Amino acid sequence: MKFLKIPSATITRLSLYSRALEELVQEQVPVVSSKRLAELCGVNPAQIRKDLAYFGQFGVRGVGYYVKELLFDIKKILGLNKEWNLAIVGMGNLGCALVAHENFPKQGYKFVCAFDNDPMKIGHRLATGLEIHPVDRLEEVCRQTGAEIGVICTPADAAQEVANRMLAVPLKGILNFAPVQLQCPEGVGCKVENVDFTVKLDNLAYHLTAG
Amino acid sequence: MKFLKIPSATITRLSLYSRALEELVQEQVPVVSSKRLAELCGVNPAQIRKDLAYFGQFGVRGVGYYVKELLFDIKKILGLNKEWNLAIVGMGNLGCALVAHENFPKQGYKFVCAFDNDPMKIGHRLATGLEIHPVDRLEEVCRQTGAEIGVICTPADAAQEVANRMLAVPLKGILNFAPVQLQCPEGVGCKVENVDFTVKLDNLAYHLTAG
Repeated sequence: MKFLKIPSATITRLSLYSRALEELVQEQVPVVSSKRLAELCGVNPAQIRKDLAYFGQFGVRGVGYYVKELLFDIKKILGLNKEWNLAIVGMGNLGCALVAHENFPKQGYKFVCAFDNDPMKIGHRLATGLEIHPVDRLEEVCRQTGAEIGVICTPADAAQEVANRMLAVPLKGILNFAPVQLQCPEGVGCKVENVDFTVKLDNLAYHLTAG
Repeated sequence: MKFLKIPSATITRLSLYSRALEELVQEQVPVVSSKRLAELCGVNPAQIRKDLAYFGQFGVRGVGYYVKELLFDIKKILGLNKEWNLAIVGMGNLGCALVAHENFPKQGYKFVCAFDNDPMKIGHRLATGLEIHPVDRLEEVCRQTGAEIGVICTPADAAQEVANRMLAVPLKGILNFAPVQLQCPEGVGCKVENVDFTVKLDNLAYHLTAG
C-alpha cells in the first residue's frame, strides 16, 4: 500500500467519506449503501467504489458498507487512528480561531504548542491553556512537545522563515494559511498544504454565473 | 456552456490554474506550456487539457498557453470578471480574520456588510470601515448593500438560523465555516460550500503515514 501512487483527490474524498460516516455513526445507522453514502458526499457511487478499491475490498454486495467498520478502515488508511500533534505560529485572529475550533480535536488534531513574535502575546496563555512562545524557540519547543505538523497563520512576509524553522525541527507536514507559496528544498520530504478560502468562493461564483 | 454538467473538481482546478497564472503574470511570463503549468499546480498536463476542453479550445500546439489570455478566459468561465459582494455573519476571531485577509479583495471578493448578535460589537466599525449590524437586520442590510454571497462564521448552533435568513434575502451562495451541515430546502437554488480546515490536515496525515 505504501508504494502505490494514490491520487490526492482520492485522499481528499476519503476524508469526506469519513465525515459522512461519522454522522451516520452518531445517527446509529449500522449499514449504508454506496448510493446513499454517495448522496451524502455529493459524488457518484462508482467514485466511492473506485476510491476504496485502491486500498482493498470493502463492503458486501447487496448489503452495502458496515458504517463503523468502514469508518475505522478509512481512518486507518488516512493515518487517523492516532492523534496528531500540531504546532501553530501566528496567534492573530486566525490563529486564535483555529486553536479554539472544535473540528480539530474532533478529528484527532491537537495543538501542542503556539508561537508568536509579538512581545505583548509571548508568555500569555490561551483559553485552552497553551502558552504562547517566541518564534525563536520553535525548534526547541516543538521537539519538547512532540509536534508533528506545523500550522502557519502569520502574515505573508513572515511565512517562509517560519516554514524554514519548521523544516529544521524537522516537521514533516505544514498547513499554510498565509497567502504565499512556500518553497521547500527538493528532497526534504516535507509536504505543504495551502489553505485558500477563496477557492471555495470561486466554486460558488461559477455556480451563480453558470446556474 | 450553461447546460453542460461540469465536475466540481474541474471548477476547483480552474481556480488553482488561475492562481498559478496570476503568479506568472506577476513574473511577466508571456507563455506557459501545459507541462510547466501542470507542475505549478501539482496536476498532470493531460488533466489541464481535459479540464479546459469542457469550455472550448485553448492554447496553441507546440507553443503553449498565452498566460494573460488564459487567465482572462478562466476568470470569465468562473464568473470572476466581476466583483462579488459578500455578507459576513459572526465577527469573532475567524470573521475578523477573514475580513482582513488580503486574498479576498485580490480575488475579486468584497465584504459589503457584517453582522453579529453581540451588543458589545453592534455599531462598532472594523478597520476596513465596515459597520457591524445586528443579525435581525440581515435581510434589509444585505439588500441595501447588494450582497450576493453569505459567509457564516458563527458557532455551530447559530448557523442554520443565519442560513435561513440568508436564503430569505435571497442570497444564492453560502460559504459556511461553522462546523455543522446546513440544510437548504430542495429547489431553493442556494449553493452551500462548507469549509473544513481539517480535510487538508487529513491529506498531510495520510502522507506522513504512507510516506
